Amino acid sequence: MKSIDIEISEVGPRDGLQSIAPIMPTAAKKAWISALAAAGIPEIEVGSFVPASVLPQLADTAELVTHARQIDGLAVAVLVPNLRGALDALTVGAHKLTIPLSVSETHSLKNLRRTHEQVLADVAAIRTAIDALPRQQRPRLEGSLSTAFGCTLEGAVPERKVYEMAQKLVAAGCDEVGLSDTTGFASPAQVRNYSRGIWALLGRERLNGIHLHNTRGQGLANVMAALEAGLTTIDASMGGIGGCPFAPGASGNIVTEDLVFLLESQGLRTGINFELLFAARRVLAAALPGVELYGFTPQAGLPKDFVAATAQ
Amino acid sequence: MKSIDIEISEVGPRDGLQSIAPIMPTAAKKAWISALAAAGIPEIEVGSFVPASVLPQLADTAELVTHARQIDGLAVAVLVPNLRGALDALTVGAHKLTIPLSVSETHSLKNLRRTHEQVLADVAAIRTAIDALPRQQRPRLEGSLSTAFGCTLEGAVPERKVYEMAQKLVAAGCDEVGLSDTTGFASPAQVRNYSRGIWALLGRERLNGIHLHNTRGQGLANVMAALEAGLTTIDASMGGIGGCPFAPGASGNIVTEDLVFLLESQGLRTGINFELLFAARRVLAAALPGVELYGFTPQAGLPKDFVAATAQ
Repeated sequence: MKSIDIEISEVGPRDGLQSIAPIMPTAAKKAWISALAAAGIPEIEVGSFVPASVLPQLADTAELVTHARQIDGLAVAVLVPNLRGALDALTVGAHKLTIPLSVSETHSLKNLRRTHEQVLADVAAIRTAIDALPRQQRPRLEGSLSTAFGCTLEGAVPERKVYEMAQKLVAAGCDEVGLSDTTGFASPAQVRNYSRGIWALLGRERLNGIHLHNTRGQGLANVMAALEAGLTTIDASMGGIGGCPFAPGASGNIVTEDLVFLLESQGLRTGINFELLFAARRVLAAALPGVELYGFTPQAGLPKDFVAATAQ
Repeated sequence: MKSIDIEISEVGPRDGLQSIAPIMPTAAKKAWISALAAAGIPEIEVGSFVPASVLPQLADTAELVTHARQIDGLAVAVLVPNLRGALDALTVGAHKLTIPLSVSETHSLKNLRRTHEQVLADVAAIRTAIDALPRQQRPRLEGSLSTAFGCTLEGAVPERKVYEMAQKLVAAGCDEVGLSDTTGFASPAQVRNYSRGIWALLGRERLNGIHLHNTRGQGLANVMAALEAGLTTIDASMGGIGGCPFAPGASGNIVTEDLVFLLESQGLRTGINFELLFAARRVLAAALPGVELYGFTPQAGLPKDFVAATAQ
């Protein structure tokens, strides 16, 4: 096992592919996931257990979990919108289940068509289902605090509401919570304050990760605040594809390639190899002709004489 | 005079316009500079005193200095490549003169066609010319440490070379030095370390500002490091136009609009009004049809319920 400082969780196969019209063939998805893992990405969110009628782009999630589980050392994550999705995820044996809860209840109703109470009841039921498994087969369960930093529908989301929902998710059975800037509203001050607030309330082990968007170009600046606060897992999407399709005006995950450069250039090891990462991008580009990929580092190339922290 | 926390120095009229082919009409430049100042930008680099044969886009710099000096409270900055340019700047009465010195001597020869020794000799001569003026008419003289973070031609630039050049610039007569990531190589660790290194060597008042590029998408992340270190003046270009035309592969200043959002969203006052800033962008866009303007915040708009620190 390589020693890494910051864990990048690649959400492109889920958050990216659900946001674009073309449906990527399953074989191409498998090749992309394998290429990402070969580059050293430690965790990949390979899909979401939603009905194919809602997101036909992700209809092959079960098959992708099975594929990804065969890759040595890779943590296989999936999104589960509800109990039914979670049961599907448990059947195929994902390592991590993420259930989103929109702190803004308006967004929750619109995005998941559920109230907070309904989501929390599902968390409790998922917990029960997980605990019925033998200990070694139990996946981690994360509650993702969507719209934590503000909502395109409700506007400002009160900080106390974020803490209240974090506490309720853990009380209902989540192993941990994650902060999610669904709408691209986050400021560095919020990232720092909310992380510290949740740690003070629930303990350090209950929050490790953050999901940031680049809607207003602030993605990597907010990563700096996350690093300063002490978060250790950061979501990103190769080529910056995706974002939240249900939040009007919001678009753009942070770009994996630029994030890896940010971390490696300041001495933080990600365990990722740039050459193989750029190769994975070419696999993605070839499978999605006509879809625009973002990211400055792949275009500019690495600086002359650059040596990544992971390579040292 | 409004109280501000971080001073944004708008370099678009110089660094931006010198990098694009179309020549912006003088009247349009004046309107743009006035619009920028009306939005609350405290300092504008309005041009460069280079021969019109080299950069015809900036041939009207003297007229722009005269125009900008009539704007109450605005600091009028210009780039001067040498003594001759500096004397022109003194004649029209710019408030601040910036002379670049490429820490990479290869880049210095290619960009300015001068050795370090020649640049330092000019700094000394400029100092003498400034000191010959009555005290109230003396502009500030800044030495800009170009390619401080690495060079597309030489590769890695030794840290000790940055400090050596900073010391020599001050010894030769600069009031202060500035750090410049001409090539888009900078990492947050470098930004922090080099700032502290120069302060330890020359005193806090000798370094205030930094010029960052977004070549690998790291611009605002590096701003976060600059803020953490304690730098107080940050260069940016409206619409992200410009960069260094002589550094192959390098492109893209950080975007003023996204920088202002980054600062204001975390409670740092810039003195800038967003509505008027976006109006200034429309003035620029109208004057440069066909030139692509960058920046996410103007496209996404401000978050619902957003209140800028300056407006509080």
